[in-house]
This record gives sequence, structure tokens and C-alpha cells, in this order.
Amino acid sequence: MMDEAIRKIAKKEKIAYGKAEGYLRKGELVIFHNLARNSEPCAVGKGVRTKVNANIGTSPGFCDLAIEMKKAETAVEAGADTIMDLSIAGNLDETRKRLLEVPVAFGTVPVYQAFLESKSHRIEDVVFKVIERHLKDGVDFLTVHAGVTKRLVRLMEKRKRIMPVVSRGGCIHAVCIEETGNENPLFKEFDYLLEIAKKYEATLSLGDGLRPGCLADANDALQIGELRTLAKLVERARKENVQVIVEGPGHMSIDRIAQHVKYEKRICKGAPYYLLGPLVTDIGAGHDHITGAIGGAIAGAAGADFLCYVTPSEHLALPTIEDVREGVIASKIAAHAADIAKGIDGDIDCKLSKARAALDWEGQFGLLLDPKKARESRKRRPPLKNNACSMCSDLCPLILSGKYFK
Amino acid sequence: MMDEAIRKIAKKEKIAYGKAEGYLRKGELVIFHNLARNSEPCAVGKGVRTKVNANIGTSPGFCDLAIEMKKAETAVEAGADTIMDLSIAGNLDETRKRLLEVPVAFGTVPVYQAFLESKSHRIEDVVFKVIERHLKDGVDFLTVHAGVTKRLVRLMEKRKRIMPVVSRGGCIHAVCIEETGNENPLFKEFDYLLEIAKKYEATLSLGDGLRPGCLADANDALQIGELRTLAKLVERARKENVQVIVEGPGHMSIDRIAQHVKYEKRICKGAPYYLLGPLVTDIGAGHDHITGAIGGAIAGAAGADFLCYVTPSEHLALPTIEDVREGVIASKIAAHAADIAKGIDGDIDCKLSKARAALDWEGQFGLLLDPKKARESRKRRPPLKNNACSMCSDLCPLILSGKYFK
Repeated sequence: MMDEAIRKIAKKEKIAYGKAEGYLRKGELVIFHNLARNSEPCAVGKGVRTKVNANIGTSPGFCDLAIEMKKAETAVEAGADTIMDLSIAGNLDETRKRLLEVPVAFGTVPVYQAFLESKSHRIEDVVFKVIERHLKDGVDFLTVHAGVTKRLVRLMEKRKRIMPVVSRGGCIHAVCIEETGNENPLFKEFDYLLEIAKKYEATLSLGDGLRPGCLADANDALQIGELRTLAKLVERARKENVQVIVEGPGHMSIDRIAQHVKYEKRICKGAPYYLLGPLVTDIGAGHDHITGAIGGAIAGAAGADFLCYVTPSEHLALPTIEDVREGVIASKIAAHAADIAKGIDGDIDCKLSKARAALDWEGQFGLLLDPKKARESRKRRPPLKNNACSMCSDLCPLILSGKYFK
Repeated sequence: MMDEAIRKIAKKEKIAYGKAEGYLRKGELVIFHNLARNSEPCAVGKGVRTKVNANIGTSPGFCDLAIEMKKAETAVEAGADTIMDLSIAGNLDETRKRLLEVPVAFGTVPVYQAFLESKSHRIEDVVFKVIERHLKDGVDFLTVHAGVTKRLVRLMEKRKRIMPVVSRGGCIHAVCIEETGNENPLFKEFDYLLEIAKKYEATLSLGDGLRPGCLADANDALQIGELRTLAKLVERARKENVQVIVEGPGHMSIDRIAQHVKYEKRICKGAPYYLLGPLVTDIGAGHDHITGAIGGAIAGAAGADFLCYVTPSEHLALPTIEDVREGVIASKIAAHAADIAKGIDGDIDCKLSKARAALDWEGQFGLLLDPKKARESRKRRPPLKNNACSMCSDLCPLILSGKYFK
């Protein structure tokens, strides 16, 4: 099964089979493909394009499966490589099953459902059952906050963060540890978790439940402590031949990003790094898809492999369908710009530039990340006489200089 | 006069008077303030916040002064530090005079008007008169493409660029050189240009008329040749005590930006660097405000001082009022993220984060770069019960963890 997946990836990503297989063996590359789903495989890690994930899902105030389906379709249309269902309202099993109809790799965070279904704070009674249910349904990768340990939660009590916990999953584990005094079951029974994941050839995405929620909290003892814990779990997963990636923040100033990505790669021995943002300022709400695209592009260029989109509604509200679209496009720009820096994917830019130089508009539209919006802009303010654009019109440098420098 | 300007800047930028004066003397900092206008001074360069410019102006198809006025107002409201009038249609003198009513530093590119007013390609007959007219009207800084020399234009004929010239001003000079065989008058009579600028204490912005128009053309012999020419002109301007900044591209992949900014700083001996973008991919049209924000943030963090915004309509059409607003906000995010990396301006992020942690929404709106859009997002999808946002609602980590980790 994995063999066939590698073959498909090699073709799609223009990477030699042997090279992909080598990276995969070392854990520097993973392929999302649950045996129970048999969807198109999606590779994340060394030697392949930087991937983009779109989070969707219901929340108590806005629980409409049709709208979430539309968001998933919109995200895929806009170029999302994977979809994660983060639903926390409505019939979660039904929602997940419907959303799994999307034709891309699919992830979930099972602890939400475990928490909502557990009567007390004893999530250990249900979390593994929920995980198995998700995997049986075909979920390709699971976020598991196995690094939110009792030791780190105790440390959090002593640290003075501006925002103690901003991860939903991380918060659930921290609260359960506080309420019951029990260790995080995903950490305590990590071997069992590996056993279940292995059955489905699913990938574990080690969540950063203690990620900083603002620049001031970035790179502190909690964040780094959790990352070091995840590094140990990466080794255990690899020993059991379970595919694993690592999640990262969140909020981080530009000058720290490249160094941080390199640190993750070093201590996690090349495990693919999956970043949310990072947001390079805290004051961008309303436009955090841009703030996140800046951080994501820098992180990607420094080696990050997988970017979780941020929508314009981040920090403010559940995203709309249009927010989803804008978030995906912003992340795609970041991922592609990173891939150019990585030396993976620059041919299309050259083709586009040749079409632009020739004022071949249809040629350009066919190569753009968002042909729809580009077409609309040009249509709304068309050129007056020539084939230029309405910015320069008669003074178009491409036309004006054309007869001298062809 | 300059003394008073330094005093104002020192207060506004929270920099010691002596420090600002020292940077100014070395040419690492400039203050935009035309003696004939006496507007609020604006500092660009070392030790002060990264500034954002918004280009506006008429074009043959869309020549409505009222709309351009509205764009200028919108840009200033959104946080633009400077406005440049790039009009190429209608009554240019009237347009400039009206736009000069904006309360921020103001720049122009006089060669457009010189070209449109010259009957033949002999711009040398009118360009200095146009420049003096602009300065008399109070223009604080002028883009002059003095580095587009006969030697470089000859070199261009031999180079195989995808896009020979993409700068409107650069193209005008190149075409005039080709048609008349005469040297660029702004290069030939640079001393005279300095003399005029000095009279008004105006700043010269040395334009990059041969900037690359796509990633494939970046960092080539033409771009670097022009930059080296500009470096020599910087020295001549400093000898005559004329304030000067240097303009840069355009299009550049992420991995090259920081190195390029450092190169400019080295060969131009710390002259403030004013960048258009850079755009980190060519395939983002429709969203090039994002592509440019990525490049601008990286450049700013590496030392660039002044970012020219890019709007979502770049490469497609003359921007609308809404495009102007989006372009300015994207650039402001980039500039602020750069300032955090420069260590200049991070307090506001900390304040915002404290308001966010306290779910103090009004406190947050007062600190955001775009409170208007943030308010609208929250209003459109308000929280159901608590004071959280509609993303997490009952599962808000800030509320859920609040009782354990305050």
C-alpha cells in the first residue's frame, strides 16, 4: 500500500522514487493516507512542495453542516492540500463522515469529541475509542496533544504568561490534568496510541498544546519544554514505524522564526514541521491571513513543511466561506514563495512572467494562484485603448519599451 | 528649520535628539519636509519606525480628481505615512496642488509630466522646470531615475531579460536615450538637480528605473549596475548636503532579500532604502498586497526603511479606493512586523495581548491596525453566550483555563 503511495507521490511531486522512499524511511517525509479511506496520498516534508491546510468545522453558535461542507469545497477549490475538521457542535460523527467526502487528505483533533462526550474530566475513558472511530472513518492524520504533560502543566502554574493556554486541545488536557490529577492519557499510553495509528497507516501530528498565544509568550520554557517532549515522542513513533509530524506556533517575531524552525528540525531529527502561522505581530486581527502569510513564508523558506492557514476572522469569529477562501490563497502564496526559496517550484513564475511580458492576459490567468479575482479586477477597470492595464495605459512600460528592447 | 524638524521627529519617534541628528548628518536618516510646504516632518531611516507610502494618481482611462482625493484620504486614514502622486492624466498641476492638501509627506515623479509636456523625446528641455514647479508647490520628496544612464541602456540591448523595463520613469528615460542618443539629463546635470533640491530642503529618492519585473530578472547586471550608479550619486548628494534615499525592487525571492538589503546598505553607505514590495512570487496577482507584505516584512527586518505599498490590483488595473485601503493595511502589518524585529516598536503588541487575554474587546479594537474590519467581523458572527468569540464559544481556552492559570 505504502509502495503505491510513494509511486504516486514521486510522480506528482517530481521527486525520484528512491529519494522519496529514503526520506520516508528516515521520517523526514510522511505520506497522509489512511488504509481505510484509500484517498489520494499527500506528502509532507523534505523534497516536496510545502503544503497548506484549511481548518473548518462547526461551533455552538454556528452549526450548519451545509455551510461547513461549502467551506471545505471552497478551500479545496482555492488550493488547500488538506482539510481539518475542528467541529465542536452538532453531531460530530455525522459531520466528520460528510466532510470526509472531500478529495484531499483529512485530519481531526479527536480530543474535542472525547472531551464533549466524557461526563467528567476523565477523558482517558473515551479518548482512545474516539481516536479509533476517527481512524475507522478514514481520517488520514490526527492531532494529538501528547506533549501536554502533568510536569509541564505544573510548570505553567508557576510561569507568568500573558495567555496561559490558547490551544483548544491543549487546554482540554491541561484542565483534565488539573481536575483529576491524572497524567495526559495520550502521553501515558503513547504506545497504545502508536498501535492504533499503525493499524491504519495514519500519521500522528504531535500538537503544540502549550503554544504561545502572543509574541511576548513566544519561545518560553513551556513552548520549548513541550517541543522537547515531542522530540522524544517522535523517536518512539519512528521506532514503531508510525508516521509522525510536529506542530508549532502560533505567534513569533520575524527575527526568531528561521532559528526556531532549524531548532525543531535539529531536536526532532528532521521531522516535518507543521506551523499555525506564525503570526509576526499581535495587532493584525481582521487581516491575520496576511500576518500569518508573512510568518509562514519565512518559516517555509527556513524549512517548515506544512502551513495551517489563518483566516481574516482569526481571533474574532468563526470564519465565513469567503474568509476560508482568502485564508487559503494567502497561505498558498506563502507556501509557494517558500518553495521558490527552497528551490522546489519556480518554473511557473517564469512562465507567468513571459505571459505578462507579452501582455497575454489569458495566459496569465491560467497560471495565477487566483485567476478568478485577477479576472474580476481587470474587468472592473479595463484598459482604455491598448492591451495594457488601466494603471499605466498609454505609458505602459512593456509596450513603450517594446520596440527598443525585444 | 531642520533643527525644529529634528526636535519634532525626536519626540514623535521616541529617539534622542542627538542620536537622530547624528544619523541625519551621516545620511542614514532623512526628514521629508519641503521648506515651501512646512508640513509635519516625516523621518525615514535608521532608528525610526519603518514607513509606508501609498501611490495614487490618475491614468488616461480613469481620470477623476475627486476619486484620487478620496484615495489619498483613505490611505492616510489607514495609516500611510506618505503619499505619492503618480498621476499621468488630466491637469497634472491642478491635481498635484489639490492632493498636496493631505497632511502627510508628499512625493512625486516629475519625469512623467516632463515626458507628457515635451513635444519630442527631448525631456532635457523641460524636466528641470517641472522639477522646480513641483518643489515650489511643496513636494517633499522626488523620485528621480538618475541611474538610468546611456551606458546601462546600451547594456540592456544586449541582456536578455524577460521584461526589459517595468518602471514607468525608467522606461521614459530609456526610450528618450534611444530616440535622441542623449544622456539622461538627471544624470548628466545631477549637480544642477542637487542645487534645486537643496533650495527647498527636499529629499531626492533615487529611482530604480531598471528594476526587475519578475523573479527571473532579479539581481542581474542591470539592476546591480544601476544600484552601483546610485551609490555614487548618494555620495555626491551628501557632499552637497542634499538628503537622499535609494529605491529598490520589485520582485525578489525570499532567500535573496536580506542579503540584497545589506548589499544596498553597504555600497550606499547606509542610505535609507525604499522598496516597492518586493514581491516574493510572480503568480499572486489579485493578492499582490500579500505577496508584497511578505517581501516588505523580510526586507524591513533586514534593514529596509521605507515600504511602498502594493495593492490587490497591482499588475491588473488602477486600484480602487478599497484596494488602496487594503494595500496600506498590508504594508502597515509588514512595517510593524519589521519594527518588532528591529526592536523599535513592540510595546503595543504586549498591550493588545493583555487586552486579548482579558477578553477586553474594546481595549483590543483600540490597539489594532484596522479596528474597523475587526469590529465588523465580530459583529457579523457574534458569540452565542459568553464573552468569547464564535470560533470556540464554550470551548474558549482563555475562559476554560482561566480559573486554573491566572
